[in-house]
Parts: sequence; C-alpha cells; structure tokens
Amino acid sequence: MSQKKIKTASLVIIGNEILSGRTQDKNINYIAKELFKSGISLKFICVIPDLQKQIIKTIKNLKKSYDFILTTGGIGPTHDDITAESISIALKKKYLLHKGAHKELKKYYKKVNSELTQSRMKMAYMPVGSKLIKNSVSGAPGFNIENIYVFAGIPSIVKAMMKEFLKMIKVKNKFYSSSIVTKLFESKIAHILERAEKSFKDVSIGSYPIFDGKPKGVEVVISSMTNKNNAMSARKYILREINKII
Amino acid sequence: MSQKKIKTASLVIIGNEILSGRTQDKNINYIAKELFKSGISLKFICVIPDLQKQIIKTIKNLKKSYDFILTTGGIGPTHDDITAESISIALKKKYLLHKGAHKELKKYYKKVNSELTQSRMKMAYMPVGSKLIKNSVSGAPGFNIENIYVFAGIPSIVKAMMKEFLKMIKVKNKFYSSSIVTKLFESKIAHILERAEKSFKDVSIGSYPIFDGKPKGVEVVISSMTNKNNAMSARKYILREINKII
Repeated sequence: MSQKKIKTASLVIIGNEILSGRTQDKNINYIAKELFKSGISLKFICVIPDLQKQIIKTIKNLKKSYDFILTTGGIGPTHDDITAESISIALKKKYLLHKGAHKELKKYYKKVNSELTQSRMKMAYMPVGSKLIKNSVSGAPGFNIENIYVFAGIPSIVKAMMKEFLKMIKVKNKFYSSSIVTKLFESKIAHILERAEKSFKDVSIGSYPIFDGKPKGVEVVISSMTNKNNAMSARKYILREINKII
Repeated sequence: MSQKKIKTASLVIIGNEILSGRTQDKNINYIAKELFKSGISLKFICVIPDLQKQIIKTIKNLKKSYDFILTTGGIGPTHDDITAESISIALKKKYLLHKGAHKELKKYYKKVNSELTQSRMKMAYMPVGSKLIKNSVSGAPGFNIENIYVFAGIPSIVKAMMKEFLKMIKVKNKFYSSSIVTKLFESKIAHILERAEKSFKDVSIGSYPIFDGKPKGVEVVISSMTNKNNAMSARKYILREINKII
C-alpha cells in the first residue's frame, strides 16, 4: 500500500484567560477530534497570551511547518482583540476593512436590532486578501489567509467555523483506528507493543492506562492514516500475543 | 509600589492522545489555576507528540525563557513513555537508575501486592542529579532537574505532584484580581477598557463576553500580580465610567 501524503495542522489558542486558568479551554478536544476524523494530523497545539509580538512570532514559525494553522480567540471588538492585526503584520499584508465582512456585520446587527458601533466595526478588519469563514452563530466572520484559518474563541462559534473550514479545504482521507482493552497492566504488555510498533510500518500504537482510583488495565489504540492493512495486522498480532499471556 | 519580579512558567503536555482528540485534557486548567493562585505567571502552554526529537527541541527552547518548565505525560512503563530519556538528552545528563525512585517503586508494588517488573523499573530511570517529586497516588515519582519539573499525565497524579511542586519552590506572591459584570456589550465599553489599560501601569484588563445562546453582556477582569493599588484604581475608574453610560 502506498504512502499517501498526510496533511498536517497546528492549533494556536490565543488568550490570557486560558493561561490564567480563568477559563477552561473547550475547543482543543473538539478541534482535535474533527481533524482526526478528517484524516488531518494535528501535530502541535500552543496557548499564547494576547501579545502582538508573540502572535506574530508564533504565526511566522508555524506557517512554514504545517499545512494548516488554525487559531482561536482574539477577534472580538475590544482592545485585547489583536489577532487579525497581528496576523496582518506577520504576513506583511495590509490590515483593512473587508467589504464582505462589513456586509455580514450590517446584516447581523440589523437582524438582532442592535447597532453596528465603531468597536464592532473592528471585526470587519483583517489582512487584505482574506477569505471569510462564515459565522452562523453571531455574525462576525473568521477569515482565511494563506494557510492560516482564524476562528473566534467562543466554543459554539468555533464549532460553526470548524464546519466551514472542513468544507473550504475539502480534505478527506481514510484512516484506521481500533482499540483493544485488556485487564493486564502496561508493564505486562509493554514488550509486545514495542515489538509491534517496530514491525509494522506507518502504524502508531498508543497505550493508555485505565485508572479509576487504582489501575484497572490498559486500552491499546492501533491507528494508521495511510496503511490500514498494516494496522489491522498489528492489531491481530497484539491480540494474539496478549492472549498468550492471559 | 515597586515592581516585584514575577516568576514565569511554561507547561508542556506530552501526548499523542491529546493531539488525536482521543483524550480530553484535564490538566491545563488545574495547573493554570494553581500557578495563578501562587502568583506565578503561566506564559505558554504547548501540546506535543511523543517524539524524542520534538521533546528535546521544546525543552531546550523553553528552559532558557521561563523560570519553571512543567511537563505532563510520558513517564509510564511502556515504549511510548520517552519523556525522562528525552529530557536527559536535552540537558546532556546521563539517563540512569535513581536509587530513591527505585526504593519508592519497591515500596509501592509491595504494598499493592504486585510485581516490580522490568517495564516498571523503567519508571526509576531519569536524568542523573534529579530530585524526586513524590507521587502519593500510584508510587512512581516525577522528577525535577534544573528548572524542569516532570509530572505524570493522569489528572489525579498531576494534582498530587502539583502540590509537591508548590512545596518545593516555596514561591508565594500576592496578586490582585477582581471582576465587574455588566449587561452592556463589549462594543459599548471597549473604549473605557482601552483607556484604563493605558492609564494604569502593571494592570491587566480582560473582557470576556457572557454568551448563552446569544450575547448577555461582559465580565471585565482587572488583575495585577505586582501592583494592587493600581489595579484597585483601575477597577474604580472602569466602574465609574460604565455607570455613566448605563
């Protein structure tokens, strides 16, 4: 079976409120699962503060290393919402009013009988050349520029934007993942897993202790994004070896 | 009031299972809150895969930039538990059996009537010169070497190790944090917050939309790790200005 090129992604969570512990992140797991289901390999996540310098540095570093960079947070109307401007600087693009975004905002605030104030207008500014990422929840869109996809931070909006993102990129790989649950402890099967990982190419094997007050066993996860046959063989091998020692 | 030097921290979550979405992280928020309460400023979090090269690179980069580097995950008995060895390489220390850790493991497995297998013995190997971080939950200790503190990944064990860490470092700063909840939208008060942030030194002002299906208002958080007086003045200022427009 040939090795298909797997698309990779990294995720940048922008927000002091996660770093201070004030807010519990609710986006990482959702985004990670959606990427996995779509056959995109999430390789790196970071949480950084609302600091222009750090956003710029992070974006510059990551954009070269991964196919997709997703960001959440910092695109609202207040003074600490600096994601769009920082990304403009990172990419050396002008930070300008996007006509389509302006239209979306006008439409939304009319619908909810509210005013499109000067602060809210800020949410229509983004790097020139951006494509909008539709926000079906609260009007103000995210945007895509180069390989960067900029989402809001509020979980319900992240979900809506993630769906739009997956439509935009049209990636659909098949992947294989299966797990084996055993009451044996990790230490009893470690040598089996190690041998399996060495023997079967393109297969990733994870072992996760089941812990409920005290150790209850292990879940072994066998997965491959490119080589289902090898993953299935690895699974059979592990199952057979585990059964030998039970 | 003088500017005290605030201690900084970064957190490295090591684990494919978070990146694939298989496991929901339960440690970030706990660690962030504990650090905040202790007056340590958490500046950066990252999630990286169980890959030796990436662990080494991450540790080398971060150790120069922050006072404390905390890591979670990858110190169990299986083939994908490579944190301790990778950190040894990053710091150019030998990766050796720690006598104290060995003793802890013997004691624990005797207590639970289980065997200290060869795989489990792996959990007593760490960079030479490490101090142990006690694990009151399941025996196998974490360790501290230079400014790096290595925890397990299981949340109950992370809690126990975090408590040990705070005892070890004996840092206790006073900090100030207070919030104002208003039904006004962010866009209505953005200019007030911006002015407050510019006027009051060493004060950080965050604004967090309250969103429950639709926008319900804003929580404004005023905090300072070093200058309580300025933070209290900023709070008064914001409250007064908000009351003017209600």
